[in-house]
Amino acid sequence: MTLETVLARIDADLPAATERLLDLLRIPSISTDPAFADHCQTAADWLVADLGSLGIAAEKRETPGHPMVVGHVDGPEGAPHVLFYGHYDVQPVDPLELWDRDPFDPAIEETEAGAVIRGRGSSDDKGQLMTFVEACRAWKAVHGALPCRITFFFEGEEESGSPSLVPFMQENAAELKSDLALICDTGLFQSKTPAIITQLRGLLGEEITITGPNKDLHSGMYGGVAMNPIRVLSRIIASLHDETGRITVPGFYDGVPDLDEDLAAQWQALAFDHATFLGDVGLSEPAGEQDRTPLEMIWSRPTCEVNGIQGGYTGAGFKTVLPSVASAKISFRLVGTQDPLAIRESFREMVRAMVPGDCEVSFAEHGAGPASQMSVSHPAFEAARRALGAEWGEAAAFAGCGGSIPIAGHFKEILGTDAMLVGFGKDDDQIHSPNEKYDMESFHKGIRSWARILDAMT
Amino acid sequence: MTLETVLARIDADLPAATERLLDLLRIPSISTDPAFADHCQTAADWLVADLGSLGIAAEKRETPGHPMVVGHVDGPEGAPHVLFYGHYDVQPVDPLELWDRDPFDPAIEETEAGAVIRGRGSSDDKGQLMTFVEACRAWKAVHGALPCRITFFFEGEEESGSPSLVPFMQENAAELKSDLALICDTGLFQSKTPAIITQLRGLLGEEITITGPNKDLHSGMYGGVAMNPIRVLSRIIASLHDETGRITVPGFYDGVPDLDEDLAAQWQALAFDHATFLGDVGLSEPAGEQDRTPLEMIWSRPTCEVNGIQGGYTGAGFKTVLPSVASAKISFRLVGTQDPLAIRESFREMVRAMVPGDCEVSFAEHGAGPASQMSVSHPAFEAARRALGAEWGEAAAFAGCGGSIPIAGHFKEILGTDAMLVGFGKDDDQIHSPNEKYDMESFHKGIRSWARILDAMT
Repeated sequence: MTLETVLARIDADLPAATERLLDLLRIPSISTDPAFADHCQTAADWLVADLGSLGIAAEKRETPGHPMVVGHVDGPEGAPHVLFYGHYDVQPVDPLELWDRDPFDPAIEETEAGAVIRGRGSSDDKGQLMTFVEACRAWKAVHGALPCRITFFFEGEEESGSPSLVPFMQENAAELKSDLALICDTGLFQSKTPAIITQLRGLLGEEITITGPNKDLHSGMYGGVAMNPIRVLSRIIASLHDETGRITVPGFYDGVPDLDEDLAAQWQALAFDHATFLGDVGLSEPAGEQDRTPLEMIWSRPTCEVNGIQGGYTGAGFKTVLPSVASAKISFRLVGTQDPLAIRESFREMVRAMVPGDCEVSFAEHGAGPASQMSVSHPAFEAARRALGAEWGEAAAFAGCGGSIPIAGHFKEILGTDAMLVGFGKDDDQIHSPNEKYDMESFHKGIRSWARILDAMT
Repeated sequence: MTLETVLARIDADLPAATERLLDLLRIPSISTDPAFADHCQTAADWLVADLGSLGIAAEKRETPGHPMVVGHVDGPEGAPHVLFYGHYDVQPVDPLELWDRDPFDPAIEETEAGAVIRGRGSSDDKGQLMTFVEACRAWKAVHGALPCRITFFFEGEEESGSPSLVPFMQENAAELKSDLALICDTGLFQSKTPAIITQLRGLLGEEITITGPNKDLHSGMYGGVAMNPIRVLSRIIASLHDETGRITVPGFYDGVPDLDEDLAAQWQALAFDHATFLGDVGLSEPAGEQDRTPLEMIWSRPTCEVNGIQGGYTGAGFKTVLPSVASAKISFRLVGTQDPLAIRESFREMVRAMVPGDCEVSFAEHGAGPASQMSVSHPAFEAARRALGAEWGEAAAFAGCGGSIPIAGHFKEILGTDAMLVGFGKDDDQIHSPNEKYDMESFHKGIRSWARILDAMT
């Protein structure tokens, strides 16, 4: 039997595969909010059962946070051993009022651009995760067995900084070691060109809390005299970038490489439409470093963003309070060999120096992972590039990625395993935003792509 | 019958008066939050009924916001006509977790410093309002009638900028005109010296909302390139004060008078303990203009404070969102002849100039009232000073006040009536904060003080 038989089976099974995905999307497995911990367990159980239905021995493995799912299946003698990684947890859904439907009551919607699967996690990452599982299901149905030895490895803390991941990989290194890790958590380039991501930014997450007076005060009584922690926090945030958009944390740019000329030329050739990229979200002026193109900024330059801020009275109407506390969540995207731990220390020192003597600052960590550079010399990269080109009718690109998937770095550091990142998300999938969706095309051709890649690799 | 008989009646009726106050405190009449509108109605009904029980013809009078309560009672021929003002609405109660009891389940608590009435609104302003009502009740019980013609005027929007007050006063000017307005919404000086407030700061409340991208974005995808509205907002807030604590809004200091030397000397004589004032709230370094004493700052200098800020993800954990919107509530305390409307325009112009071309800013108003200077030449001021001295055993002070009670200015402007502000709150009453209380001493001696003032004035 040939690859064509597997692809035909995928086509025929698409309605059932879609129902399975909708079932998984109904589980509100938000990892960052402890209120949803039980649902993370349910999502892990669902995956164990689904892998079990494929004849794959899978287990839920507890961690101090949400559980891992690990499953193994043997392959023919001499075939490679791959590990497939995805995450079953999803982002929070607020602001809920901006969703056109319940984020956990997913559905297929017909749009002008074709059918989409709408719901939180459809693109990031449950839909993508299931492309690989469904490819395996079809392969197994046609061939009775899988083409190679496969380890399935799903985590439930990717959207909350993966605190359990490194300890788990260290403790289970022998079990998780493979010839190549496959990661499906990225997208098509410009929503149409298949892409293998070869560089990923790192991520450092910090939360700072400024305490001024020891209780909320009346701003008429104490205003002007007592230091307002929102004022302190705003000064700190305002100082993180200079007038040219450059980040001012001392030593921040240590380890940021100059952009390789060949890579720069390749990226230029991708004809990225900067105006459309910004125009799609209602903006026109790039906010970052003034001497860089947006694509360069996203793929090869570090950033500092405030992801959340709060202090004082934020309800309806007005309250003349001088608050005791203000806090902000701040993240840094890192490139090259920038050291997240060194930057954390430098950032905290800079913040401490800006806090007045009788105010206090405290810090909370929300993950710290370096940037990754993939080793494209592994023969699987060329095989995958050919396979993707055959499915999508367009040569696949070796691309960068603005997001942070620290697991790629961990596979290399902890297991010595190269990682290949292939995904089928589109730019308008609204991941991390209201109305997240995954195109039916992404799901269908994604499943077919993995079947082709497995075929090409074995 | 003499004043002593009235005072004895007040002493005997204190338990019943306390029960009545607790009853009023149980009504969660938070004016700034529309969810509590029905409770504001209930509080107004309660006051109408309570005045009715004193034989005072009172009515609830609807406004576009929460209702006013207006009641009239005649006095003897030739006696003056006074208007008494208080407000039945209260501040929001968040952060609720910092309260030691349900803010709307008030109770008498015994503390080392004596009994206190604990609950939202106990000091600001329901307890203070009831000191006058209870003085009238005792007077009526003893004399069968009140000593002068009195108009009772209670509003329910003081904590949310009093949007209906000026229109209502204008429409009902003839009805509300009197010889003198009495306002009970202030405190003792340093928690022990009776005080008549002769200058009050004005208040301008503004809310600014910055919109950057037209939806929440993934900070990995758009971070650095798309302008983050929290960054814009932080820069605006950070720019509102210079390094010396001076406010930078153009023209802001127009109309701020130099401190009168006599007044400065009188304030010096009050021996205000700056270190304790800050130390009580866990601070040690004055944050305002560096060349002013804290008392000078609070009573005679204008301020700019951020009362609330929010943007992005503020729940538990972390979310790498680049938010579409960030907003802040900002208030200015005004002195002298500073013009709130001119400052609003200048502030908005300054903000607009700091918003990048492709971001948007919108503004919401939360009240604008100028500062007030009382006319102490009215003979009632000397009479009240003597009466307060007799009750508290210490000469009453003519003092300033950091808070804003715009109604005093409105009585003068709209009705041509002078206002006298007398109140019995203490510095540790935690008004606008969790665990608000009103000392039983404030309540009891407050009632007695009004009886003495009514006696001295008539």
